[in-house]
Amino acid sequence: MAQAPSSTRFDVIVIGAGPGGYVAAIRAAQLGLSVAVIEREHMGGICLNWGCIPTKAMLRSAEVFHLMHRAGEFGLSAGSIGYDLDAVVKRSRGVAKQLSSGVSHLLKKNKVTAILGNATLTGAGRVEVTTDSGVQQLTGDNVILATGARARELPGLEADGDLVWTYKHALMPPRMPKKLLVIGSGAIGIEFASFYNTLGADTTVVEVMDRILPVEDAEISTFAKKAFVKQGMTILEQAMVKQLDRGQGQVTAHIEQGGAVTQHVFDTVISAVGIVGNTEGLGLEQLGVTVDRTHVVTDEYCRTGVAGLWAIGDIAGAPWLAHKASHEGVMVAEMIAGGTPHPVKPDSIAGCTYCQPQVASVGLTEAQARDQGYDIRVGRFPFIGNGKAIALGEPEGLIKTVFDTSTGALLGAHMVGAEVTELIQGYVVGRQLETTEEDLMQTVFPHPTLSEMMHESVLDAWGRAIHF
Amino acid sequence: MAQAPSSTRFDVIVIGAGPGGYVAAIRAAQLGLSVAVIEREHMGGICLNWGCIPTKAMLRSAEVFHLMHRAGEFGLSAGSIGYDLDAVVKRSRGVAKQLSSGVSHLLKKNKVTAILGNATLTGAGRVEVTTDSGVQQLTGDNVILATGARARELPGLEADGDLVWTYKHALMPPRMPKKLLVIGSGAIGIEFASFYNTLGADTTVVEVMDRILPVEDAEISTFAKKAFVKQGMTILEQAMVKQLDRGQGQVTAHIEQGGAVTQHVFDTVISAVGIVGNTEGLGLEQLGVTVDRTHVVTDEYCRTGVAGLWAIGDIAGAPWLAHKASHEGVMVAEMIAGGTPHPVKPDSIAGCTYCQPQVASVGLTEAQARDQGYDIRVGRFPFIGNGKAIALGEPEGLIKTVFDTSTGALLGAHMVGAEVTELIQGYVVGRQLETTEEDLMQTVFPHPTLSEMMHESVLDAWGRAIHF
Repeated sequence: MAQAPSSTRFDVIVIGAGPGGYVAAIRAAQLGLSVAVIEREHMGGICLNWGCIPTKAMLRSAEVFHLMHRAGEFGLSAGSIGYDLDAVVKRSRGVAKQLSSGVSHLLKKNKVTAILGNATLTGAGRVEVTTDSGVQQLTGDNVILATGARARELPGLEADGDLVWTYKHALMPPRMPKKLLVIGSGAIGIEFASFYNTLGADTTVVEVMDRILPVEDAEISTFAKKAFVKQGMTILEQAMVKQLDRGQGQVTAHIEQGGAVTQHVFDTVISAVGIVGNTEGLGLEQLGVTVDRTHVVTDEYCRTGVAGLWAIGDIAGAPWLAHKASHEGVMVAEMIAGGTPHPVKPDSIAGCTYCQPQVASVGLTEAQARDQGYDIRVGRFPFIGNGKAIALGEPEGLIKTVFDTSTGALLGAHMVGAEVTELIQGYVVGRQLETTEEDLMQTVFPHPTLSEMMHESVLDAWGRAIHF
Repeated sequence: MAQAPSSTRFDVIVIGAGPGGYVAAIRAAQLGLSVAVIEREHMGGICLNWGCIPTKAMLRSAEVFHLMHRAGEFGLSAGSIGYDLDAVVKRSRGVAKQLSSGVSHLLKKNKVTAILGNATLTGAGRVEVTTDSGVQQLTGDNVILATGARARELPGLEADGDLVWTYKHALMPPRMPKKLLVIGSGAIGIEFASFYNTLGADTTVVEVMDRILPVEDAEISTFAKKAFVKQGMTILEQAMVKQLDRGQGQVTAHIEQGGAVTQHVFDTVISAVGIVGNTEGLGLEQLGVTVDRTHVVTDEYCRTGVAGLWAIGDIAGAPWLAHKASHEGVMVAEMIAGGTPHPVKPDSIAGCTYCQPQVASVGLTEAQARDQGYDIRVGRFPFIGNGKAIALGEPEGLIKTVFDTSTGALLGAHMVGAEVTELIQGYVVGRQLETTEEDLMQTVFPHPTLSEMMHESVLDAWGRAIHF
C-alpha cells in the first residue's frame, strides 16, 4: 500500500488538500488504496489556513477581550485592558500553522504521498503536476477534485490589500481599522464585522438582501441584527455598494439604499460578497466536465459524469462548508474502495457563524417549510428562561424549532446565542436518526445546561414548555 | 381548573418545590388538574437556591477570572486582576433569587396554588400544612413526594458554618479560604475545590475511593486528577479524614492513607460526603411507605406502593440529579392525568460536573460494560486533535465512547474538557433514539466545533479516526 514518493501510479489522486481533499485521501488510504494528494499552497487548504480555524482563533481573542471588559459583572476587576493586534494575529497564524502541520503529519502517517504543486488533468486519469523541481506525470484510476473556492471579486470592489481587504487580508491586517465597511453579511462578513467591532472599530455592514445572515431563519436574522446594533454596529439592509473611491488612507463608498445613493468614508473595507469555485487551469473543459457558475456539476455521489473523476467540497457547490466537504471525501473514498455509502444529506448539514452572539442552524427555516407546503408547528425558547444562561451572564438568545405537524418530524432548528455552534449537533444527531417531537421530549437533557433549551423549544412547539 | 388559595381539595398535592416538584405541578396543571405545591423554604428548592444554579454562577466568575490571567496567550493585556468574593457571592445569590422568583411566577401563571409551609401526611391523600398563619388540612387524590435531599453529615465532621462548611456555607462563605480541605470528590466537592482553587486557595481533596469523581470512567478520573494537580491541588485518594480538631481559626485534620494517619492544618474544611433523602417528619411510616437508607422505595413509575402516593427526584434515590427529578415529575403528572408515558431510563441520564476542566458522561463506563459481559469497542479522541479546541486555547480533554461490538449500540460516553457539559446531549439524543455507530458516523457534525470530536471518537472505536 505504501508508495515511494517516486511512484507515479496511484489508485486515487486527490487534487487539493483542504478538509475535503485530505480527508478523502486519508480515508482512501485507510481502505488500502494507494493515494497521492496534490496541494497548491498549504496543507489543510483555506479552511485551516485562511478560513475556519484562524478566524476562530481571532474571535476567541475578541471573546476574551469582551469578557474582560465585563469583569465587574462577575465580581472581578482588571485595569488597563488592552489588545495587541499583532499578537492576536500571531496567535491565529500559529494555530493555523499547527493544524496545517498536523495535516501533513496525518497524511504521512497514513502513507499518503503529499505533493506541493499545481495539478492539471491532461486526460482521463492523467494528472500533470508542476512543482518547484519540475513537471511530473501521474496516473490514477480515480481523480478527486477538491480544489475549493476563493473570494468572489466584484468589479470596482476588488481587494487591494491596503484599503480594501478579502478575508486573507482581514486575517493578516496591516493595521487596526478605525472606520470599517464590511460588504456582505454572510458568515464570513459577519464574523469579521463582529471581530473588528468588538476590538473597537466603528463598523458598518452592508447587505444587498432584505436582512443580514440571509440564509438563516428571518427571526434569527432579526435577533442577531438587534444584538449587533446594540454593540454599536451600523447595519444597512437592502443596500448595495455601487462604487468605492480609493483615496489617500481612505475610501469613499457610494451606498445605494431605498433608491438613494449616499457617500460614506471609511479607512478600511472588507469585501465578503461570496465565493467562486476554483475550476480554472484544471483542464476540465477538454474532459467534458460540466461547470455551472464556477462549480463542477455532480450527482449526489459526487460523480462528475466522467468515469473515475469526482468532485467534492466547495468546487462542487453549496453549502460551502468544510464538514460537507469532508463527509463527501469519506463517501467518495468508500465508493472507490467498492463500498456502498449513503450520500451526504444536504438538509442535515448545519451552518455555524461564530459572531457574538453565535448563530447555528440546520434544515428548513420557517419560511422554507411553509413554502414547501408543510403544515408546521414552531417552538421557541429564549435564553432568558434558562438557568445556565443566566448563571453564565448570557441571557440573550433564542432556540427555534420547526416541526411537521402531521409526522412530528424536526424540519429545522435555528439558534442564536452563547455556544449554539456546539449545541446544534444534538438536533443534527436527531435528524440523522429521523427523530420526531416525541423522542426529543423524552430525551433527558442534563441540568443546568444551555442544551435544556433544545428540549423546551420542542415542548413549546407542542404547547408544553415548562419554563416559559 | 384555577383554585382559589382557600380551597383545600386538589387533584394533586406536591410536597417540595425543587425541579421535580415544581415541574410535576406545572405539567399537572397544563393537563387540567387542580394542583397545590407546598414548599418548606424556597421555591425552586436546593437546585435553584443552593445547588446547581448558584454554583454555576460562582464557577462562571472563576472561569472568567482564570481567562483574564491567560490574557497574554490571546494577545490581550490586563493589569491588577482581582476578585471581590462578596461581589462574586452577591452575583450568585442574585442569579438564584432571579430564578426562584421565576419559579413562583411560573406556578402562578399555571394557576398552581403555592404554599410556603411544612407538610405532613396524616393519612392517604391527607396533608397537614403548617404555615406562618397556622395549620391547614388539604386533601388530594394524588400526593407527590418531592422533598429532595440534604448534605450527609458524618460524625465528627459535622459542619459548623465557621471552620467546617457544607455546600450552603461554601455558597455564602464568611471568608476566602487560604488553606482548604475538601472532603469528598463527587460533583459537589470537586466543583467547590475547583472554584476556590482557581481563586487562589491552597486546596486539598480527600477521597475515600481509589480515585476522584468515582462514578466517572476511570480514565476520565485520571485525566481530571492530572489537570487538577497541574492547577496546584493536592489530591489524596484511598484516604479518609478520621478526625477534625477544631481550634482558633484552624482545623487539624487527621488523614489516613495507606495505613498511616498524618495531621494537616487547614483554615477551612468543606464536607461533601454525599447526601441523604429528606424523609423525616412526613408521616411516611404510618402510611406503610418503604424507606431504604433515607430514600423512598418506588417502582420505575415512581409509585410508592401506597395508592395515590408517588415519590420523585432525590427522595426517591439516585441519580440525584435535577433533570432526573423533572422528567419523573412530568411522567407522574401524565400518569395521574391518565396518560401512558414511558418510564425515565436511568441509563440515559447524563451527569455533569462543572469543574475546570468540565466532566460529563452518560451510560456505562468501560469497566461497567466489561463487568456486564459486553464485548466492547472503545473510542477515544483527545482535544489536542481538534481545531476548535486549539483555536479556543483549550487543548486538554478527552472524549471516550464505549460500544457493544455485536450490535453497535452506544453503551456509554465519557468526556472531560471545555464545554463537555453542553456536548454530552448529542450522545443522549443518540441513545434515546437507539443509535448505532453507523448513524453517528454518518452524522455531519459541524466544523469547526468541539462536537466534531464526538464523531472522531466513534470513528476511533471502529479504527477509522481521521484526525488522530
